[in-house]
Amino acid sequence: MKFFKVVSIEEGREIVIKNFRDYKIDTENIDILNVLDRILAEDIVSDICVPEFDRSSVDGYAIKSRDSHGASETIPSMLNLIGEVKMGEDSKAEVNFGDAVYVPTGGMIPKGADSVVMIEHVERLDDSNIMVYKPVSSGENVIFKGDDTKNGDVVLEKGKKLNPQDIGALASLGKSKVKVYNKLKFYIISTGDEIVDIDEKIEKGKIRDINSYALYSLIKKIGGEVVEKKIVKDNFDMLKEEVQKGLDTSDIVIMSGGSSVGTRDFTHDVINSFEGKGVLVHGISIKPGKPTIVGDANGKIIFGLPGHPVSSIVVFKAFVEPIIKKLMNIKDQVNKTRAIIDFNFRSSPGKTTYQMVSLEERDGKLYATPRFGKSGMITLLSSSNGYIVIHSDEEGVYKGEEREVYLL
Amino acid sequence: MKFFKVVSIEEGREIVIKNFRDYKIDTENIDILNVLDRILAEDIVSDICVPEFDRSSVDGYAIKSRDSHGASETIPSMLNLIGEVKMGEDSKAEVNFGDAVYVPTGGMIPKGADSVVMIEHVERLDDSNIMVYKPVSSGENVIFKGDDTKNGDVVLEKGKKLNPQDIGALASLGKSKVKVYNKLKFYIISTGDEIVDIDEKIEKGKIRDINSYALYSLIKKIGGEVVEKKIVKDNFDMLKEEVQKGLDTSDIVIMSGGSSVGTRDFTHDVINSFEGKGVLVHGISIKPGKPTIVGDANGKIIFGLPGHPVSSIVVFKAFVEPIIKKLMNIKDQVNKTRAIIDFNFRSSPGKTTYQMVSLEERDGKLYATPRFGKSGMITLLSSSNGYIVIHSDEEGVYKGEEREVYLL
Repeated sequence: MKFFKVVSIEEGREIVIKNFRDYKIDTENIDILNVLDRILAEDIVSDICVPEFDRSSVDGYAIKSRDSHGASETIPSMLNLIGEVKMGEDSKAEVNFGDAVYVPTGGMIPKGADSVVMIEHVERLDDSNIMVYKPVSSGENVIFKGDDTKNGDVVLEKGKKLNPQDIGALASLGKSKVKVYNKLKFYIISTGDEIVDIDEKIEKGKIRDINSYALYSLIKKIGGEVVEKKIVKDNFDMLKEEVQKGLDTSDIVIMSGGSSVGTRDFTHDVINSFEGKGVLVHGISIKPGKPTIVGDANGKIIFGLPGHPVSSIVVFKAFVEPIIKKLMNIKDQVNKTRAIIDFNFRSSPGKTTYQMVSLEERDGKLYATPRFGKSGMITLLSSSNGYIVIHSDEEGVYKGEEREVYLL
Repeated sequence: MKFFKVVSIEEGREIVIKNFRDYKIDTENIDILNVLDRILAEDIVSDICVPEFDRSSVDGYAIKSRDSHGASETIPSMLNLIGEVKMGEDSKAEVNFGDAVYVPTGGMIPKGADSVVMIEHVERLDDSNIMVYKPVSSGENVIFKGDDTKNGDVVLEKGKKLNPQDIGALASLGKSKVKVYNKLKFYIISTGDEIVDIDEKIEKGKIRDINSYALYSLIKKIGGEVVEKKIVKDNFDMLKEEVQKGLDTSDIVIMSGGSSVGTRDFTHDVINSFEGKGVLVHGISIKPGKPTIVGDANGKIIFGLPGHPVSSIVVFKAFVEPIIKKLMNIKDQVNKTRAIIDFNFRSSPGKTTYQMVSLEERDGKLYATPRFGKSGMITLLSSSNGYIVIHSDEEGVYKGEEREVYLL
């Protein structure tokens, strides 16, 4: 058995990314109504100008701006109202000096006009005369053709996680379908003789499977798909058989449990029993989560996460998720906030500590309160909504300090 | 026509919530694998103790702690190894003074033991003798029965938006199904003679429907369901007919466009043409978003959002979403962060300004850069990931100031 040095979380991520740099993820073309939170697999280039014509940004009167110069509440400019632009229609009128044409918000600017006076600053005397009480400058209240986007502009970049605004932008460009990465397929295996499924009776010494449910939801949350979730006893052959199924049907296999120093640690041996580079990382210097293992089996990634539910969630968020984002080249939105630490906490020497916290707003300020738990604590799970990272070279965190909180 | 005073966004929300206080949302019982991001419609009370037996939180030796007192590197305590607890099995051994039993992480603590010495602090001499090099105190490395959750504890409260940790907690309690609120059903209507759908040809003067796509995705993002999305011309009868369909099939109707001061504003009249309290709010003092309208038609909520895409997104996030959360009593996670403002910006007197920003991290600090756009700007949409709120009594924001950014 090869000897593995415990690595930092950054080193661990690097090793995995380096080994799976050529991981190929297929793409599909789908309707933009179904692309929310999916990852864009192409640059979106505009093939039109938006808007495609000069538009008014207010309800008002299109004029030549010079006609309004000098206008004021006491000395208004008098102009001839020569027509009206209807919403959604081509404007036929042409504005000369002394002319005005009514234009609704979004309406097309008639030829000759270079600006729009808002109706608030105009008095309509009769059907053919208006008084302008305020000067406008050239271009005022006009959105010019291509002001927003020009033909050839890259509007959205490959790797973007698509949000509602992006989908609005795609619609305005007339893109009804876009190319996105397929959802990554995961296979979840909870290992351990003590693990029973949710509806089984719990006998003395057994505990319910928590991890596969939490992992299932974490995977869904990042846009992945779970092919199957299974509970497997601590038995080399059974585990190998299940991993084989996972490799056959999924992109990534995630095991949890069985990665501790216990006597029944088969994860390592099972990973190495397949073709491929075998175990790549065995142990990362974070707390909790040290017994994390990662390997290459048949060219696919296998993660072995700790059995402890809190540890497996932390390792998923802090280790697995960033690796997946990097492999898919995802440019994600900021997912952290700053909060005032509400406690003193010593770090563990030589280890990066991930401390779960719950965020609470008091008097308009955000506080992070620690959630401690010796192990597998439900209360810890159900009341935490973020974590802070205390680096190995820090002594700890102090009450009153402001820190970054990564949202769960 | 009743005269409406423009109200503040807070007043507007209050008026709607007061009028729809008794809005009834049905519930359903579903499998916890499908409840991610759904809203819990019941308190979850534990009917078990977790853990259900005393467990070890480390790999080690269960002992009576007094046997280790005084132990050190130089003067270890020698104990008799009388057995081993197997994972997932009831422990039959009984620990007396001088005894030790091997226990893996998560294993059951044998009777008589009150603590576990980690294997790192033990040397195993042979099959029946160990040396303990470090003292433990009573309870050390033990998770006692009910330490986590006791029978009768409220673990998750009604109104909680369920996250992966919650789902883990539900699994550990053996709850395979929970009661959640039904997804709210929305009907989206984009109005305007100038609006054409995504795959229609754009003629001069027309623009593509952006809003119904953005709103569709915003609704999905907050866990709602869109029954239908339609484009309707500025025509009272056609609009009324479409709203009728919306009221018949959905919980909430959202219109966009047609709520400006233009000549073709039918939203108001259509809302009032149904049974119910009619228009409740007409105009809120925010920028953008002033021409927002809300009414009660047949006892259901109708929102009329501005036609401008950025305005309609802002009004959805800042006005519609909080109303829905309040009506469903949703206790949501913090969805904002703090960032350093990267620009000077004057507010509009008498109006609360919602300014879209893009967040960027530089040297470990988060900066908010404004995204300006005269109207319907795609670039504004596709590059913004949050907004700041500048209250009407503020003069504006200044470069270098730290502000709250609400994430989109």
